[in-house]
Amino acid sequence: MQTNTSDSVRRRIYKIIFEAETTSGRVFDALLLFIILLSVLVVSLESMSQLNRKYGDTFRFLELIFTGLFTLEYLLRVYSSPKPLSYMFSFFGLVDFLAIIPTYLSLLFPGAQYLLIIRVLRLLRAARIFKLTHFINEGQVLSRALKASLTKITVFLGAVLIIVVIVGSLMYLIEGAKYGFTSIPKSIYWAIVTLTTVGYGDIAPATPLGQILASFVMIMGYGIIAVPTGIVSVELARSEKESFTTQVCPNCHKEGHTPDAHYCSNCGSLLEV
Amino acid sequence: MQTNTSDSVRRRIYKIIFEAETTSGRVFDALLLFIILLSVLVVSLESMSQLNRKYGDTFRFLELIFTGLFTLEYLLRVYSSPKPLSYMFSFFGLVDFLAIIPTYLSLLFPGAQYLLIIRVLRLLRAARIFKLTHFINEGQVLSRALKASLTKITVFLGAVLIIVVIVGSLMYLIEGAKYGFTSIPKSIYWAIVTLTTVGYGDIAPATPLGQILASFVMIMGYGIIAVPTGIVSVELARSEKESFTTQVCPNCHKEGHTPDAHYCSNCGSLLEV
Amino acid sequence: MQTNTSDSVRRRIYKIIFEAETTSGRVFDALLLFIILLSVLVVSLESMSQLNRKYGDTFRFLELIFTGLFTLEYLLRVYSSPKPLSYMFSFFGLVDFLAIIPTYLSLLFPGAQYLLIIRVLRLLRAARIFKLTHFINEGQVLSRALKASLTKITVFLGAVLIIVVIVGSLMYLIEGAKYGFTSIPKSIYWAIVTLTTVGYGDIAPATPLGQILASFVMIMGYGIIAVPTGIVSVELARSEKESFTTQVCPNCHKEGHTPDAHYCSNCGSLLEV
Amino acid sequence: MQTNTSDSVRRRIYKIIFEAETTSGRVFDALLLFIILLSVLVVSLESMSQLNRKYGDTFRFLELIFTGLFTLEYLLRVYSSPKPLSYMFSFFGLVDFLAIIPTYLSLLFPGAQYLLIIRVLRLLRAARIFKLTHFINEGQVLSRALKASLTKITVFLGAVLIIVVIVGSLMYLIEGAKYGFTSIPKSIYWAIVTLTTVGYGDIAPATPLGQILASFVMIMGYGIIAVPTGIVSVELARSEKESFTTQVCPNCHKEGHTPDAHYCSNCGSLLEV
Repeated sequence: MQTNTSDSVRRRIYKIIFEAETTSGRVFDALLLFIILLSVLVVSLESMSQLNRKYGDTFRFLELIFTGLFTLEYLLRVYSSPKPLSYMFSFFGLVDFLAIIPTYLSLLFPGAQYLLIIRVLRLLRAARIFKLTHFINEGQVLSRALKASLTKITVFLGAVLIIVVIVGSLMYLIEGAKYGFTSIPKSIYWAIVTLTTVGYGDIAPATPLGQILASFVMIMGYGIIAVPTGIVSVELARSEKESFTTQVCPNCHKEGHTPDAHYCSNCGSLLEV
Repeated sequence: MQTNTSDSVRRRIYKIIFEAETTSGRVFDALLLFIILLSVLVVSLESMSQLNRKYGDTFRFLELIFTGLFTLEYLLRVYSSPKPLSYMFSFFGLVDFLAIIPTYLSLLFPGAQYLLIIRVLRLLRAARIFKLTHFINEGQVLSRALKASLTKITVFLGAVLIIVVIVGSLMYLIEGAKYGFTSIPKSIYWAIVTLTTVGYGDIAPATPLGQILASFVMIMGYGIIAVPTGIVSVELARSEKESFTTQVCPNCHKEGHTPDAHYCSNCGSLLEV
Repeated sequence: MQTNTSDSVRRRIYKIIFEAETTSGRVFDALLLFIILLSVLVVSLESMSQLNRKYGDTFRFLELIFTGLFTLEYLLRVYSSPKPLSYMFSFFGLVDFLAIIPTYLSLLFPGAQYLLIIRVLRLLRAARIFKLTHFINEGQVLSRALKASLTKITVFLGAVLIIVVIVGSLMYLIEGAKYGFTSIPKSIYWAIVTLTTVGYGDIAPATPLGQILASFVMIMGYGIIAVPTGIVSVELARSEKESFTTQVCPNCHKEGHTPDAHYCSNCGSLLEV
Repeated sequence: MQTNTSDSVRRRIYKIIFEAETTSGRVFDALLLFIILLSVLVVSLESMSQLNRKYGDTFRFLELIFTGLFTLEYLLRVYSSPKPLSYMFSFFGLVDFLAIIPTYLSLLFPGAQYLLIIRVLRLLRAARIFKLTHFINEGQVLSRALKASLTKITVFLGAVLIIVVIVGSLMYLIEGAKYGFTSIPKSIYWAIVTLTTVGYGDIAPATPLGQILASFVMIMGYGIIAVPTGIVSVELARSEKESFTTQVCPNCHKEGHTPDAHYCSNCGSLLEV
């Protein structure tokens, strides 16, 4: 009977910290989000030297408290999970773990506490608290479109990579160290800054030949941004369309029928009977 | 009878300042737009120190006159409205109010007169004077598409936010205060400047590791701009389609007629019976 | 008979300089393009002070020759045109005229010769010489799409304008003259530089509040570029589709039928009889 | 018989270095890619003056070894090819040749070894080793779409070129040499930097009139990026469609089946009989 009591406690804890169906579950999630936000804010503020000089001790004290709370939460999650290991190695399990480690590390390596910023990833839990199934659906449409266009985008990025290596090397030969192009890696960095139209201006071509080459790179970068945009647009349009066809064939259980389909495209059975 | 006269005066005022059907109404609107433009121009010029030194008194005199006129107009709008309160708390009512307040505030707080620039919002009334129903239609198509893609864009912006917080913190650890990355908030600011491909160059990575991370951020920013673009394109295509294809042929049930079609393009039957 | 001879001369000149059907016409056009390119190059090189010091006289001599040739060509065009006035006030007629005026102006106002760069517009004639009907078709598809999206783009630009005026004024209040935001017009200029993701960095926010506002503007600019892109994509897709339906109704002469239309959508007559 | 043995050796070599079906062929390709990457890395590192001072001799020694290996490989490719000349003048044949020449050139012209960076192009062979037919298919869809939109993009680039020449010249007249606009070519360079939204900030307008013109150019550049994006999106959508919908139902002639369909989604008949 002892085990049964412990089991019911465990199940209750699970319901509170893993689900958002009950009132206490929702209160817990809201509180958690608030503390996460506060914690991220404290880490950010601590990095500002003026504030750190004044309120450094307060910041470090708050961090210890937040870490204590998160450690307690982490242990409860591991304890209440039906399968503790599968939680610990899930995405959220790893994020929860990484969100408490830096404080302990900072006792050994000063500065490590800034890694606490990874706590911002915990905000992803927000999707659940607001029961944002709508948001999750949209996110799935987005990620499906991105996944579908992954191969094309890889081909595209490969081409971009080869372009920046060659352009960077040419600029190194043309401009030389005098104008900031001190090495091929740095020139490749410049090529990326230019092709992506970021254009810091920390390194900029100064010779006429360099400026001509740079002009070509800029116009190329201005033009080829059309490629990923076109890819994602097309995939998104398809992914959207596909998200309206949730029919499943009653015979072979094939999913993903086109909206105008009357018969299953896999086995020929009549749909929607 | 007194009330009736006052009522008819009120209605006449209403027709002049709220509508653009009558000649006097259109003259009033054109005059109003002209004065708004002039007023915005005066505020802008007053902020230029050279001109302010020379013509400061003239500018302030003009502002007082403009504010007087706008105050009179505002009172007339409130007076002539059938439901004064609903006007006062409508979008245009609030803008009209905010367009006169700064002058009075500037008597107490010097500098507040620059808030007069909010008068630029009053230009939105221009849509009505030119009877630009066509413009308004197009604006509605646009805003419908933007509203429909709001959830997806929120998901997207959330992802962007988490990326810039993490990248900013990493850069703070990598580069440090020596190269301008003096705090996490400032590094996040740099991450936004880079990811959006703005690239001021006021802060720029100087260490090899920082430049490698920056390269990743730039290529990411260059690529993910495809996402909102794709979202809006798809929604706009749908929104466009919806505003043109509602008719169904009564004979063959073909959909997708052009807005100027009188007969079905498939079977020749008369539409809209 | 005198008139007839002069008429036939005039017609022959017309065929050479206005058309590209005959060999002599094509030779003339090729030569003309070559001289235009040379002339643009000379104007560009003259502006480089080092070269100007050395070869200034040569450049000015060449310009006189080019202008002489273009003047002769212009007079021949006017002479050989069946309707001289309609040529003179056509787009190409005005460009041809503006391409010779600056040299004469430069005798009165030194520096005016740089306006000769307008000759670059004459290169538009290149489309004809290569008989690039394909190019012209594509150009028409493009310009039709742009024209169709003009209203939407005007609405969009109006919104952008109001945003930059308000953001610029806010930044002027927040940052002030200390960091380069010396006046509202200059701050509006900064807002445009930022919103369009150009980001020179000649003016950049330095206060925390200013950087927060700038971050919002950047993310906004990063996002709203999706709007014109979406507009043009949709219009281009439609314009492309429409360019495959060149049928005209035999009964009511309506154009622009959809590709799958069997009957005129305006009067119900059978198409393609 | 001598010839036959030599023939079989040649065929075996061909299988190893040109194909990736056999184990030895795959090992060869993997090794080759690794050496190419290493070689590109060495060239990059050699260009960093600090490293060059320390390890310069090692780098040059490694380059000689890599070049020796690539030369041997090149000779074997020529030897084992059934048609040596068609290999030598193929794209990959030329790249293979250019990948070894710079080392020999650098004996005569110091610095030429940086041209070795062209070896990065050899990484394109990677597509084959991973048997990435999927990647190649996607690449073909991309390149088909880009080829189809080539004419439109040429028209677009022509317009961009004329814009930057005219804008550049105007800025030269407005701003003059005082603010970095020292010549028309340099001002054209500035116009490209601005129109493509790169915005280095090495040259930036300082006069009010120049900033107004720059504002127009920026908004124009911000807007017209929509054009190539729209072009590529439309072409890509068409190119995608074409690569998926070729089947026609033998019964009801419905088109547009998904690639995994066995039965017509409209009438249920078997496809591909």
